[in-house]
Amino acid sequence: MPSVPNVKLNNGKEMPLVGFGLWKVNNDTCADTVYNAIKVGYRLFDGACDYGNEKESGEGVARAIKDGLVKREELFIVSKLWNSFHDKEQVKPICKKQLADWGVDYFDLYVIHFPIALKYVDPKVRYPPSWQDADGKITPSKAPIQDTYAAMEELYDEGLIKAIGISNFNGALILDLERYCKHVPQALQIEHHPYLVQKDLVELCKSRGIAVTAYSSFGPQSFVELDMASAKSTELLFDNKTVKEIAEKHKKSPAQVLLRWATQREVAVIPKSNNKDRLAANLDVCAFDLEKGEIEAISGLDKGLRFNNPLNYGIPTPIFA
Amino acid sequence: MPSVPNVKLNNGKEMPLVGFGLWKVNNDTCADTVYNAIKVGYRLFDGACDYGNEKESGEGVARAIKDGLVKREELFIVSKLWNSFHDKEQVKPICKKQLADWGVDYFDLYVIHFPIALKYVDPKVRYPPSWQDADGKITPSKAPIQDTYAAMEELYDEGLIKAIGISNFNGALILDLERYCKHVPQALQIEHHPYLVQKDLVELCKSRGIAVTAYSSFGPQSFVELDMASAKSTELLFDNKTVKEIAEKHKKSPAQVLLRWATQREVAVIPKSNNKDRLAANLDVCAFDLEKGEIEAISGLDKGLRFNNPLNYGIPTPIFA
Repeated sequence: MPSVPNVKLNNGKEMPLVGFGLWKVNNDTCADTVYNAIKVGYRLFDGACDYGNEKESGEGVARAIKDGLVKREELFIVSKLWNSFHDKEQVKPICKKQLADWGVDYFDLYVIHFPIALKYVDPKVRYPPSWQDADGKITPSKAPIQDTYAAMEELYDEGLIKAIGISNFNGALILDLERYCKHVPQALQIEHHPYLVQKDLVELCKSRGIAVTAYSSFGPQSFVELDMASAKSTELLFDNKTVKEIAEKHKKSPAQVLLRWATQREVAVIPKSNNKDRLAANLDVCAFDLEKGEIEAISGLDKGLRFNNPLNYGIPTPIFA
Repeated sequence: MPSVPNVKLNNGKEMPLVGFGLWKVNNDTCADTVYNAIKVGYRLFDGACDYGNEKESGEGVARAIKDGLVKREELFIVSKLWNSFHDKEQVKPICKKQLADWGVDYFDLYVIHFPIALKYVDPKVRYPPSWQDADGKITPSKAPIQDTYAAMEELYDEGLIKAIGISNFNGALILDLERYCKHVPQALQIEHHPYLVQKDLVELCKSRGIAVTAYSSFGPQSFVELDMASAKSTELLFDNKTVKEIAEKHKKSPAQVLLRWATQREVAVIPKSNNKDRLAANLDVCAFDLEKGEIEAISGLDKGLRFNNPLNYGIPTPIFA
């Protein structure tokens, strides 16, 4: 099995630099996919309420533990607080429901999914709630991030979560958060690929000991599947000349080069694949090194192009404006 | 005198769409410049603690009122809270000092200059304090924006300021602010020119009734003077073919076209000039209209290019990351 290095978080815990992302993993194959990923060597699983597959992910984990493939303490299970649960009194109940869905008694990392607070939706009405309230409308909640974050800190202090994460936060929000927080977050998860490098944001995090996890490491790829216009009109990173030439030189796939470009800079990655060979290949991205000039050439593809913007889904919440 | 339309703020007050910006107006000429600007027809003056010329600006205003050119209530005086005064107990004392410097008993608009909180510097030690603390270091303060904003709301409720503004805030911060504020801000001031259009941010503000004021309407121009590399390597907007052709067609200067591009979209502008003819020309930018296609062509020059980023001055505070 490929060896995956850990990154040390600012609270002393360790997080694998490569994990498996559960976004868009279908419910009917999810348990098997997680089980197989553990078999291949994955230890970090990046889930979320919004992905709608936490029960199935937990089934895969439970079977792997039962079969002796892995112990709970060898896994690093990540979940996320959805927008509809930002009201401070909703944070602990929903986290506990998510823990129950996974069948575990703590998350290694629990992440505020977006800096967006929406009106509470009772899980009995609709779960996961997505962006709409019980009446089908997008209705904001009045919960400031400060309140939601304080509720996350309570989960942390109680041991229900071993690290606090934020996702889709920008520099200004992080600079504000560090003024009121009791515990600086351990991790930030952001869209990060050669078309959206976000150098200043990554550097801010490094200076604070906040680990950065990249999502959508392959850039447009994930969003072509969602039929997003800006993704379809952009050259796939797999087809990009710079990426391809570097891949050929190292006898690796473009995907592996893209993942190594991140991990070599200590940015964690969470690719997913339903294909068993690619599953293994994606994990094996720390056993070769890119040259400094190659990393710079890939970073040079930056064009500030973001795909995962709520506005691109018709959600009128311009968190990246 | 050119007629300048007002924009109606969300609290019913009116703000002129064209004003005079006091950034980089020298102390020795400032009082005369303000006096002459009033004579030419300017009614809005955009000042700030950080510009270091509030006393001189106030002298110009006082002389104009004494000479019967204008009444206080016909003026719209803007000032800004500097980063070093974000601690909530510092907001009112410094606002009162600034009012005293101007020689007025209220500001029409008082603006949080940056979403950056720095350690307090006693005005007796250094004023304006700029970015460094009393020991010459850049030291953050722990004041969250929520606390500073609440202190601004107190000034507003007491009548010391007639409108609350924010500056250099992004969409995510505004979305958070609107969850905890008592009064939605009346105005946002941002860098805004054809190379940095910030369409989503402007639309967010419109949807909330927050008036937008553009600073650095001429783009690189102001920053070439500051010897900023990214400004020097960028084509001046005055030299840009699209802008020049539209200017020639309307028999206006490129500067007037750039200002009209903003004001016609209800974005207020605050140019400055030390030249008397240009002073008048800059004010006269609401008496002609650009065609829809011309506005779009100018907006099409957008390249997300920001000059006024603290990082560009070596200040390690990535509010735009």
